Amino acid sequence: MSGNRAIAYKGPGKVEVIDVDYPTFELQDGPGVNPANVGRKVNHGVILKTVATNICGSDQHMVRGRTTAPTDLVLGHEITGEVVEVGSDVEFIKVGDLVSVPFNIACGRCRNCKERKTGICLNVNPDRPGSAYGYVDMGGWVGGQAEYVLVPYADWNLLKFPDKDRAMEKILDLAMLSDIFPTGFHGAVTAGVGVGATVYVAGAGPVGLAAATGAQLLGAAVVIVGDLNEDRLAQARSFGCETIDVSKGDPGEQIAEILGVPEVDCGVDAVGFEARGHGQDASHEAPATVLNSLMDITKAGGALGIPGLYVTGDPGGIDEAAQKGSLSLSLGTGWAKSLSFTTGQCPVMKYNRDLMMAILHDRVSIAKNVKATPITLDKAPEGYAEFDAGAAKKYVLDPNGYLGAA
Amino acid sequence: MSGNRAIAYKGPGKVEVIDVDYPTFELQDGPGVNPANVGRKVNHGVILKTVATNICGSDQHMVRGRTTAPTDLVLGHEITGEVVEVGSDVEFIKVGDLVSVPFNIACGRCRNCKERKTGICLNVNPDRPGSAYGYVDMGGWVGGQAEYVLVPYADWNLLKFPDKDRAMEKILDLAMLSDIFPTGFHGAVTAGVGVGATVYVAGAGPVGLAAATGAQLLGAAVVIVGDLNEDRLAQARSFGCETIDVSKGDPGEQIAEILGVPEVDCGVDAVGFEARGHGQDASHEAPATVLNSLMDITKAGGALGIPGLYVTGDPGGIDEAAQKGSLSLSLGTGWAKSLSFTTGQCPVMKYNRDLMMAILHDRVSIAKNVKATPITLDKAPEGYAEFDAGAAKKYVLDPNGYLGAA
Amino acid sequence: MSGNRAIAYKGPGKVEVIDVDYPTFELQDGPGVNPANVGRKVNHGVILKTVATNICGSDQHMVRGRTTAPTDLVLGHEITGEVVEVGSDVEFIKVGDLVSVPFNIACGRCRNCKERKTGICLNVNPDRPGSAYGYVDMGGWVGGQAEYVLVPYADWNLLKFPDKDRAMEKILDLAMLSDIFPTGFHGAVTAGVGVGATVYVAGAGPVGLAAATGAQLLGAAVVIVGDLNEDRLAQARSFGCETIDVSKGDPGEQIAEILGVPEVDCGVDAVGFEARGHGQDASHEAPATVLNSLMDITKAGGALGIPGLYVTGDPGGIDEAAQKGSLSLSLGTGWAKSLSFTTGQCPVMKYNRDLMMAILHDRVSIAKNVKATPITLDKAPEGYAEFDAGAAKKYVLDPNGYLGAA
Amino acid sequence: MSGNRAIAYKGPGKVEVIDVDYPTFELQDGPGVNPANVGRKVNHGVILKTVATNICGSDQHMVRGRTTAPTDLVLGHEITGEVVEVGSDVEFIKVGDLVSVPFNIACGRCRNCKERKTGICLNVNPDRPGSAYGYVDMGGWVGGQAEYVLVPYADWNLLKFPDKDRAMEKILDLAMLSDIFPTGFHGAVTAGVGVGATVYVAGAGPVGLAAATGAQLLGAAVVIVGDLNEDRLAQARSFGCETIDVSKGDPGEQIAEILGVPEVDCGVDAVGFEARGHGQDASHEAPATVLNSLMDITKAGGALGIPGLYVTGDPGGIDEAAQKGSLSLSLGTGWAKSLSFTTGQCPVMKYNRDLMMAILHDRVSIAKNVKATPITLDKAPEGYAEFDAGAAKKYVLDPNGYLGAA
Repeated sequence: MSGNRAIAYKGPGKVEVIDVDYPTFELQDGPGVNPANVGRKVNHGVILKTVATNICGSDQHMVRGRTTAPTDLVLGHEITGEVVEVGSDVEFIKVGDLVSVPFNIACGRCRNCKERKTGICLNVNPDRPGSAYGYVDMGGWVGGQAEYVLVPYADWNLLKFPDKDRAMEKILDLAMLSDIFPTGFHGAVTAGVGVGATVYVAGAGPVGLAAATGAQLLGAAVVIVGDLNEDRLAQARSFGCETIDVSKGDPGEQIAEILGVPEVDCGVDAVGFEARGHGQDASHEAPATVLNSLMDITKAGGALGIPGLYVTGDPGGIDEAAQKGSLSLSLGTGWAKSLSFTTGQCPVMKYNRDLMMAILHDRVSIAKNVKATPITLDKAPEGYAEFDAGAAKKYVLDPNGYLGAA
Repeated sequence: MSGNRAIAYKGPGKVEVIDVDYPTFELQDGPGVNPANVGRKVNHGVILKTVATNICGSDQHMVRGRTTAPTDLVLGHEITGEVVEVGSDVEFIKVGDLVSVPFNIACGRCRNCKERKTGICLNVNPDRPGSAYGYVDMGGWVGGQAEYVLVPYADWNLLKFPDKDRAMEKILDLAMLSDIFPTGFHGAVTAGVGVGATVYVAGAGPVGLAAATGAQLLGAAVVIVGDLNEDRLAQARSFGCETIDVSKGDPGEQIAEILGVPEVDCGVDAVGFEARGHGQDASHEAPATVLNSLMDITKAGGALGIPGLYVTGDPGGIDEAAQKGSLSLSLGTGWAKSLSFTTGQCPVMKYNRDLMMAILHDRVSIAKNVKATPITLDKAPEGYAEFDAGAAKKYVLDPNGYLGAA
Repeated sequence: MSGNRAIAYKGPGKVEVIDVDYPTFELQDGPGVNPANVGRKVNHGVILKTVATNICGSDQHMVRGRTTAPTDLVLGHEITGEVVEVGSDVEFIKVGDLVSVPFNIACGRCRNCKERKTGICLNVNPDRPGSAYGYVDMGGWVGGQAEYVLVPYADWNLLKFPDKDRAMEKILDLAMLSDIFPTGFHGAVTAGVGVGATVYVAGAGPVGLAAATGAQLLGAAVVIVGDLNEDRLAQARSFGCETIDVSKGDPGEQIAEILGVPEVDCGVDAVGFEARGHGQDASHEAPATVLNSLMDITKAGGALGIPGLYVTGDPGGIDEAAQKGSLSLSLGTGWAKSLSFTTGQCPVMKYNRDLMMAILHDRVSIAKNVKATPITLDKAPEGYAEFDAGAAKKYVLDPNGYLGAA
Repeated sequence: MSGNRAIAYKGPGKVEVIDVDYPTFELQDGPGVNPANVGRKVNHGVILKTVATNICGSDQHMVRGRTTAPTDLVLGHEITGEVVEVGSDVEFIKVGDLVSVPFNIACGRCRNCKERKTGICLNVNPDRPGSAYGYVDMGGWVGGQAEYVLVPYADWNLLKFPDKDRAMEKILDLAMLSDIFPTGFHGAVTAGVGVGATVYVAGAGPVGLAAATGAQLLGAAVVIVGDLNEDRLAQARSFGCETIDVSKGDPGEQIAEILGVPEVDCGVDAVGFEARGHGQDASHEAPATVLNSLMDITKAGGALGIPGLYVTGDPGGIDEAAQKGSLSLSLGTGWAKSLSFTTGQCPVMKYNRDLMMAILHDRVSIAKNVKATPITLDKAPEGYAEFDAGAAKKYVLDPNGYLGAA
């Protein structure tokens, strides 16, 4: 049994490498663990030696201090690893398997799991449907930005790569299967993207770039990405997207310059509640901006995919409504256009096998598109800071040297 | 050529029977007619002698003076009739046919019509996608609460009843195919109602009762209807629905009394922007109440069907946001539960033939469920007033005596 | 630990009550057990005390001697029971739970299970995708026409009834959830049945009657059932179906008498490979009759749901082609009409919860519709014989006296 | 008014350029015109000056003498043209528009058209649902391998290219929208192709290559094409497909060499009833070969898309069953694997706009993939002969010099 080094939240703006316990097949008490989950047997779980574990934009909400995350919470829900121990109830996953872990923890036994809605599993989070590793109010499953991590319900949750050697050649791409590639893809799918569609993706962070990549893979005719950050827009252009700088004004007009009409078939919100205004309002938060803008620029009969996170409470919100998770939405506009809206966590398991196949057969270069950048565990604090400052990169932690980040 | 008597809007709170021109195969100028539509040739149209033409809740928005509807606008978009003249381009509809008219006017030739999205046809309203008879800002097609009415693109728009005699036996049921039955059914469908579902329908007006009827037809296990109006709730109970009185408090608690859990699988908003508060707030308008309540009581992974009308502008709204059609929505709650939302006019043509079959083969009694009540054209002003006062009836005008209302 | 009495196949035309071992949490060798499954650990399983266990038409294929089923194979895949022991890996199912067992055995961990295709689970039958209890060449899981039975992957497979007392009041209805109600319903769903549809169901055996019931629940306007057996047709008429006697001639003509047209929207094959001819050919087997007839009478653009079993080999088939499972199909007719076809075992888990809700809330009377008839275990041989002779009943064995059959 | 030169069938193995009448807005009597269609008014039609009109594999069935096509039937149903006259009822299509014509003729007014099933329109062919230009038993609409052609229901049927100059730059690609690109795409869609799928396409003729192209556009991970013709296989490899030569043996083994397993997720039959055997049986017709092979190699739970034509009668068939359009199908294999099957003409209108967008925005190179090759009208007889001999080309006739074929 070895030790275990991990990335922990240490208060607003601060993450550190700390030493934590090596996982066991029982959920131990600790920072953020739901009392009802303490002592839970996990014989259906496996212990992974982490191969890649990414920093996610949704981690930043905690790190910025906009949640009730406790100090010493181990972060990380984007996990790829090699199985080093299997629990007694695990039947099909074997020691040595190289696997991707969906960030949604799911039991594989409840009504929602049976209906493929693994983002809202009923049995893993005592507080509400849905759970994730290393996340506040999500049940207390320990985060995976660590050398080792426990994955429950392993036969159900894990996606095994069919060939380890081939997988290691594409490991940075495959590392995106745990969250952002399926999440972005889900945004595109729920926005109704299909062959020939015109698509607008709000946000050029990693999820936005993944949504744009997903839209291309689904056969979109034109993918337009909007953001305030020129580096991120350049990244979007690097793989064939059109871009618009929303700080320069209304997206509709800029879309018209590209398409000839101020509308797209499909809209994706890859920003969420920390949205900023458009044009001259771009310097301050305006949480309803993206959704209201998408209702304006999505054609009648279109759909909005909303993978961007909206929260039930945001103590740091700009006003009382925002603090309660309320948004002032121009629903009348949406109604007049017969729009539909799909919200929520991506049910990763619905998509990850298909996207793996596309990666392994060279149909998509998601790592390049989001500029996946391996760094050591020790560099994680810098990675968090740079990402928060808007670096057009997706940081991938390399706790065990598989990626050669050192 | 005969004259034509019709129901017109005469200012806030006032409707009257007036004399208007008998229709021709050209759209004439008149109150509310879009200038770009004046003089439009309608050789693809037919003239109907009206058999049944219903008063709709959405007419009330105009009559209450909450829109820019001009005086003398002829009302009425729920039309069933007998063909008395056919235009030169009409090929399949014949004089003597008994037909239902979808309230959405559609060309049958644009991208949206080809995709079955007839509620947002691109060619009939110069201002925006979507149109309807006798409605403000919808292009200016003359309303059908009249003895005679022009229906454009007749081969596309009209649903012919296969046997006139059998149809006349069920004419009050069939009269609901022009709007409320498909509209309520669409609410149920887009809320995800299927066999075994539990359903909450907000609103026990005619559309709510039609949604409840539709949910039953789709195999729902339990249909719960909520409203403030006890007569309307009694009407819902008359055909097997459970009911809750939202003036008595939170729907969630009352749902729990019925189902054992405070949640349903599917939520339908059959109220729209003129919603009132729940519990002690029931006496005043609170336009986001229904949607926020539905997000609370719809289970994670569920869907909301929103046939209730939300508008882009409501000069009579309770505050500045409402006047612009903005609602303060707890989207964070919806997002945490991975809910989806479908808004907009029902594309009637997608459903009316199937619902006609269900009526003709005695599978559903929509007229009884909504208490369809024929009245003469002259009684229309009283009908409007009683409906506005909350009568648990659906008034069906009988301008030509087919229904024996006199 | 008690003994265990069970129904076994004893050679063509013969079933008997025999004594077998009480189940353990390991799959033991025995008649029909796949060698690769011998010794398989089943800590994820539970042992049920059988409440109801039905005789199925597909059991008859074995009993008639048309398969390679070995002597002493314990029969029975339609199981409802009470949990008396749980394996060490079972987490959510508890001793005392009253449950329905889908006849498809599924692991809840493979690609197909994750995609809701539990009828073709990859991990339970070493020979091919898909498995069932008590069935030849299906892996060797012991049949459930017994006092006690082992159910593997219990957390995944079992549907728990929410309230035992209420469930016992409807137990004959709920007993149909293990196979025929979902199977018939799947036939209707894959035939495209929806609100207002006209439907033809070939076969008035229990699956056909269940398909007809399912079609009604889905809102069909007219359900027509065809068979050669007048008692079974009378049973179909007892709950509102139209019927036709295929021994009297072509279904198309008889359909025209009912509907006015010789076509239906949706066709269901609830007969399978032991079909007989129509009209004067009704006295001999003609395995392609039903499918060719359905292609004739299903409208262009319609769909065929094919829950009726077709086999890869039938040593008792009428000719060389039939013995190899080949059928002479008029595919040209189907192609000209753009028909689609869905074959295969019903994935029970996709439907059983919804159908349970419909039963518990009094929306459907499946037991009455199929004339569910409880008999003791000792009467099983007579039940098999009567069912084979065409009795219009669904026999439900009552091995432990829960149903009061004695 | 000009004359009109056209390609006509002149008996088995023979096509010629003949002079025919310039079209009028009324369907005239002539070879192959259904008597019930003679004299039909077509004021809803337009007359096109043909820009591109392709030779199709289904024309070859007639030219080979395997149908009842009459001498002097004008061939051609793959039409792209410029509007030169519009009928009096045409409202949105204008003289000068450059348009693609779906090969299915559809009225835009019947139940099937309203349901997007334009391949089986009820109003254009007096004999049965579905019609096409220049095809035996399809109603008698005159073929488009001519200088000028009449297109009925023009507002409904025609797809207008948004920008003529841009369209002319891609005209060979756009010319594939009238039939083979949507047809192949429909095969892929109905085979269930999505992102990450493995696909086998039987047949490397133009429809097979279009299906392969469509599968790639839909995100397939691997597309494998099988044929007997090495030139056509080389064409498939030219755009990234894997290929197998079915004359060398069983497709399953060759698939296993490529994928590691002898199965694919999705199977497309782009061959139809004139199939040949595999391996040593490749020299003679064996009409059920392709479908039986696809059932073998498609994974359990997969789907078969069947755009390849199967006919109701084939006087030149190899035996009595084939002559009646009956096939000996191993349906038992398909049933055991829970396969589904979709047959019939592609409803072109469901796909052509989306595929046009993909072409115009450089997402797909269909003309290159099928080796579209323009030739003059006078060279049509050679084109037919070379295509019949297996040339790996798609011949595009250029009757009016738009393509510069001369």
